[in-house]
Amino acid sequence: MNITKPYLLFLGDADDTLAVKTATGLYQWCAPDCVGQLRLPSCVPILDLPELTLEQARDHGAKTLVIGVVNRGGIIPDSWLEVLNQAVALELDIASGLHTHLSNIPSLRDSFARNNAQLLEIRHPQGPFPVATGQRRSGQRLLTVGTDCSVGKMYASLALHRALLKQGVATDFRATGQTGILIAGGGVAIDAVVADFISGAAETLSPSSAEGHWDIIEGQGSLFHPSYAGVSLGLLHGSQPDWLVLCHEPLRQHMRGLPKQSLPTITTCMTMTLQAAQLVNPGVQWAGCAINTQAMDPPQAKTYLGELSDELQLPCVDPLRDGVSSIIRRLPLASIQ
Amino acid sequence: MNITKPYLLFLGDADDTLAVKTATGLYQWCAPDCVGQLRLPSCVPILDLPELTLEQARDHGAKTLVIGVVNRGGIIPDSWLEVLNQAVALELDIASGLHTHLSNIPSLRDSFARNNAQLLEIRHPQGPFPVATGQRRSGQRLLTVGTDCSVGKMYASLALHRALLKQGVATDFRATGQTGILIAGGGVAIDAVVADFISGAAETLSPSSAEGHWDIIEGQGSLFHPSYAGVSLGLLHGSQPDWLVLCHEPLRQHMRGLPKQSLPTITTCMTMTLQAAQLVNPGVQWAGCAINTQAMDPPQAKTYLGELSDELQLPCVDPLRDGVSSIIRRLPLASIQ
Repeated sequence: MNITKPYLLFLGDADDTLAVKTATGLYQWCAPDCVGQLRLPSCVPILDLPELTLEQARDHGAKTLVIGVVNRGGIIPDSWLEVLNQAVALELDIASGLHTHLSNIPSLRDSFARNNAQLLEIRHPQGPFPVATGQRRSGQRLLTVGTDCSVGKMYASLALHRALLKQGVATDFRATGQTGILIAGGGVAIDAVVADFISGAAETLSPSSAEGHWDIIEGQGSLFHPSYAGVSLGLLHGSQPDWLVLCHEPLRQHMRGLPKQSLPTITTCMTMTLQAAQLVNPGVQWAGCAINTQAMDPPQAKTYLGELSDELQLPCVDPLRDGVSSIIRRLPLASIQ
Repeated sequence: MNITKPYLLFLGDADDTLAVKTATGLYQWCAPDCVGQLRLPSCVPILDLPELTLEQARDHGAKTLVIGVVNRGGIIPDSWLEVLNQAVALELDIASGLHTHLSNIPSLRDSFARNNAQLLEIRHPQGPFPVATGQRRSGQRLLTVGTDCSVGKMYASLALHRALLKQGVATDFRATGQTGILIAGGGVAIDAVVADFISGAAETLSPSSAEGHWDIIEGQGSLFHPSYAGVSLGLLHGSQPDWLVLCHEPLRQHMRGLPKQSLPTITTCMTMTLQAAQLVNPGVQWAGCAINTQAMDPPQAKTYLGELSDELQLPCVDPLRDGVSSIIRRLPLASIQ
């Protein structure tokens, strides 16, 4: 799925910041790709981007209206439809990460039929994907994995990708979740692929590349999350990583969404993840740990990370506070400017 | 998905036995549920069942025409369509395990619209399925797992289910593949579920049951198959087994479909499978091994199974040659008549 930039971010009638987390992620990671924002009159949150009408956005070069708001209960309000239909009439593509099938809305379907614009539904991946072959591919691959869901895998992946870019390394960020896909302008929502093809879709996402090229692949879920471990294992095998970065949030009390399910220890998670990854690449190694320490005060975080680094003999950093340069230094980069 | 028995088996214009393996499986495991077979004039294979016209089958009580043949290249020949449309006109349901969407064929869609008959497409599971919760469920669960695909998991599961039934134990066979689903008259094609919902679909398939009740769950794939391990792990977590039976084919040279991928050792497979299963049920245990020895002569098979039993301290049998009673004896059955 390829999404054409630049974007106009649609914030709808959201009533708090959490409801526009897709837009916030895009603003944080690819603000230069966003010409502005479009807010309905009752919308509360606001980003530090120009407020534009659809016509103004088009005149500023916008190619795609991105739905940056998470809708509740899967119902698209009529107030959105007016904007969406007008956008299509102006030949803007629409990119949506919603579960709701926009293509099932008759007036919108008619608009697309009449105009030269595309509907890009990220949660409904275009297939068909092949069955995975497990064959080795050229180029280097790094995958972020986690002790749980929502522990910062996308953030760590983007930080690693950006750090490599700054060093002049040939690299691609390979997105597997909806916000990541919008940031990258492409990718596969891996948890929405039919089970038989998880690994095959991951192989397609990260094809053979030149020696010295690095794919930084956004991980999903956790091998230790009883709801989603199958997705994580299929992604791990299909990604065929040479390097792994473990993402973890130290103060989390239980697996996300499952109050009775405790987190694995970091070492248990590392041991089992490496075993599973060796099935497709016996040489796979740990590059380090990306720890989300936002719930700790800075001295506490520093002590924690220092002790963890000593224990694991690996760089352990909070990407947001410390950057990822100590992890990058462990990687065999072919070309450093 | 519930499929109504008894069946009329449709063998189409198949030119060898392998092309009708779905029908063969049904004949082997639920012949009393099959009123007969329907073969087109050029069909070569034949089962030991009455040859019936559609009208005769209906008069014998058939409720569902089962497509018992695997089509090549996904094209449904016109000669099949005539039979299928007539079946629908006689208000027989049609059950298909083909990848091809029969509902996309206009004449067939029209027939279904005009008549009181259902189209049951096993490879396209009805959803939506929930996200798995990982919550413990009552009743006992046994899952078959494998060192590879196609090593006899369905056969072993059916043999275990039948042996429990003979002992008067309350039990259900929970089918996860197309032939199993047709034999059981219901189930979920787990590899066709969207990735996020693999474990949730497995939880739905095997709900809480009475103490002393046994669900025998058909395994799929292998944690060690790079193409399908995500499916196997999601099924393992969602099934939440109390007992596991390992299925293995000793003379297999490589993982099915992947000439360069070697099989895991039995002990490696058992260690990692148990670790993964403990995530949702710390008490999970091995009940034994079901070994497909058809490529060995009887003395060789006997020696192999004896040595393996000694090494693992578990019953190791070929279900086809030896039955599964030694595995059943290890299980804590509440009610033996």
